[in-house]
Amino acid sequence: MEKFSASEHPHLRYNPLRDDWVVVSPHRAKRPWQGQVEKKAVEDVPRHDPKNPLCPGVTRPSGQVNPDYKNTFIFDNDFPALLPGGPDPPKSDDPLFQAAPAHGNCRVICFHPWSDLTLPLMEVADIRIVIDTWANEMVNLGKVNTWVQIFENRGAVMGCSNPHPHCQVWASSFLPNEPSVKHRTQKDFKEKYGKPMLVDYLEKELAKKDERVLLESAHWVWLVPYWATWPFETMLLPRRHVLRLQDLTDDEKNDLAQMMKNLLTIYDNLFEVSFPYSMGWHGAPTGTYLEEDCSHWQLHALFYPPLLRSATVKKFMVGYEMLASSQRDMTAEQAADRLKALPRVHYKHKSD
Amino acid sequence: MEKFSASEHPHLRYNPLRDDWVVVSPHRAKRPWQGQVEKKAVEDVPRHDPKNPLCPGVTRPSGQVNPDYKNTFIFDNDFPALLPGGPDPPKSDDPLFQAAPAHGNCRVICFHPWSDLTLPLMEVADIRIVIDTWANEMVNLGKVNTWVQIFENRGAVMGCSNPHPHCQVWASSFLPNEPSVKHRTQKDFKEKYGKPMLVDYLEKELAKKDERVLLESAHWVWLVPYWATWPFETMLLPRRHVLRLQDLTDDEKNDLAQMMKNLLTIYDNLFEVSFPYSMGWHGAPTGTYLEEDCSHWQLHALFYPPLLRSATVKKFMVGYEMLASSQRDMTAEQAADRLKALPRVHYKHKSD
Ligand SMILES: O=P(O)(O)O[C@H]1O[C@H](CO)[C@@H](O)[C@H](O)[C@H]1O
Ligand SMILES: O=P(O)(O)O[C@H]1O[C@H](CO)[C@@H](O)[C@H](O)[C@H]1O
Repeated sequence: MEKFSASEHPHLRYNPLRDDWVVVSPHRAKRPWQGQVEKKAVEDVPRHDPKNPLCPGVTRPSGQVNPDYKNTFIFDNDFPALLPGGPDPPKSDDPLFQAAPAHGNCRVICFHPWSDLTLPLMEVADIRIVIDTWANEMVNLGKVNTWVQIFENRGAVMGCSNPHPHCQVWASSFLPNEPSVKHRTQKDFKEKYGKPMLVDYLEKELAKKDERVLLESAHWVWLVPYWATWPFETMLLPRRHVLRLQDLTDDEKNDLAQMMKNLLTIYDNLFEVSFPYSMGWHGAPTGTYLEEDCSHWQLHALFYPPLLRSATVKKFMVGYEMLASSQRDMTAEQAADRLKALPRVHYKHKSD
Repeated sequence: MEKFSASEHPHLRYNPLRDDWVVVSPHRAKRPWQGQVEKKAVEDVPRHDPKNPLCPGVTRPSGQVNPDYKNTFIFDNDFPALLPGGPDPPKSDDPLFQAAPAHGNCRVICFHPWSDLTLPLMEVADIRIVIDTWANEMVNLGKVNTWVQIFENRGAVMGCSNPHPHCQVWASSFLPNEPSVKHRTQKDFKEKYGKPMLVDYLEKELAKKDERVLLESAHWVWLVPYWATWPFETMLLPRRHVLRLQDLTDDEKNDLAQMMKNLLTIYDNLFEVSFPYSMGWHGAPTGTYLEEDCSHWQLHALFYPPLLRSATVKKFMVGYEMLASSQRDMTAEQAADRLKALPRVHYKHKSD
């Protein structure tokens, strides 16, 4: 019988963090595409727009006026999904009609006063300020909240409703679904194998080196996980065992700022477009978990970009994916090879 | 303290089928939208397009010529995600690098020879033929496959790459993630409470009647599940305990054809547009499961539509949803009220 080749033959790969499987169909990228094509991201955003509620000096829908901020600026989301107070739903005995309390804070972090920048186009020193802001929010919101989710939706195709460079923080009284599963899987792994899962994983990826590792710096490694689901999904890991963003040293934060600039430049260079994605940080939970043993956790950032073939054709996670299992049209290694081959200088600076 | 009101206060709702939670933020629908707007679905599809590989008489990319079919037409997907044969990945001892065999069949079912029709615009008798085709595929593909996923991606916004009315069937040697979780949760429920979960659930929804039940017929009930995630997500359930699509009686199938026409007409009327969605059937697994006790399963169809505010503004399940938990901007009851208030005659036939 023919020998198995991951880049030729359909197979499943196990995601040990989510305890589920992704269908890998490497041969399928060849199919023609007659479906929806996205608009190319608008590249000519004005530096300052007096109507944009995220710009310095602008009056937001709430009536508050933004300060004339110089680097990051944080405020409470004017349309928050979670609120700190409010009544709790009544308890129900019926297992099929269960409601539970949901409290929290939703905040917006502007990265920079200029609307025409994105993280990869910012100065490393300014990215470092963003990282400090993240760490501060983790500490402050993590005092009372069980989970602090920092995330950036970049690009209209990712539901981002404002082109100004910004991210969000949704902190909650509860452990959401994804971290709740990852809390369990990492705990089980550590109990069984005596090591944090992602610490073990990084060691193994570094040993295999040329398969899925994309960039290495003094303190960080950027890679395509073996179980990646989105076409160009990646993960960013510290070399050291670190539980939470606020536990990073100064050196690690400086190095992270440079690493983020480098990796996001490579992403932008893939299709020579401001690359859309949702990204976010996962680390040990906070609130009462701050007093518990969370040594099975390892801090990591996740990048979920939707594009598949070009700047305008994305991967749709729809019928089969929603009802059965996620499916990808090329292997993690094929995606890694494409990303590794890209120039390290941002396409917008090519002629400089 | 203020009294809790589900339509005012953020809360979590438990999804007993998926064993996870959805964040309900009913107050959030009021926020302004400056984000991506979808193209309105093209409504002027030609009845026959000699270049469309799904039309009768057309030569497909594979070189095969479609017959001059009169109702449904089934063929093997020319770009299948799963293949029946091929080698299996080697076994690995490493828990972090696990691959598993994935075999199966991917088929396409054209609903009708005309490209300018959709299910709600088809004759009930023709929808009945589609249902029979589904049941046949379930039987045939279910002989060797563990799971037969029938699904329809409708609309370009749902990644549908061809406007001709059709659905897909992806049958697999493995139990995919979603049905695998639902197999477990329904089994646990039946062991604990002595009744199939969804049989119990339907009884309770019918008793509450005016909350989330949308349409009732002799054999079927259409409702918004208490734990719905997508803004206008719904579920279609038989009144009788039925394990699989192929177990439906003739009467149940006739009634289902009429019910599908009715419910999809209501969906189209919501924004007076050919309503995009992914839909699919979940029932007891097949293959070797055909010999096992699967009495904890209840057949049901799921409808996941992406639209939120209008024909062109969808709900983005992005950053927070991908990294933490799904979140919705109105309650299941509010969605049910909107759907219940809609006319029962298709907007395209209003003037007839
Ligand atoms: O097979 P199609 O319709 O071309 O493809 C569509 O449905 C598939 C199954 O949900 C997805 O994997 C694809 O991303 C989507 O574009
Ligand atoms: O808060 P935004 O950016 O307006 O909204 C965006 O991100 C949120 C969090 O992922 C999602 O719930 C929204 O659907 C999306 O449009």
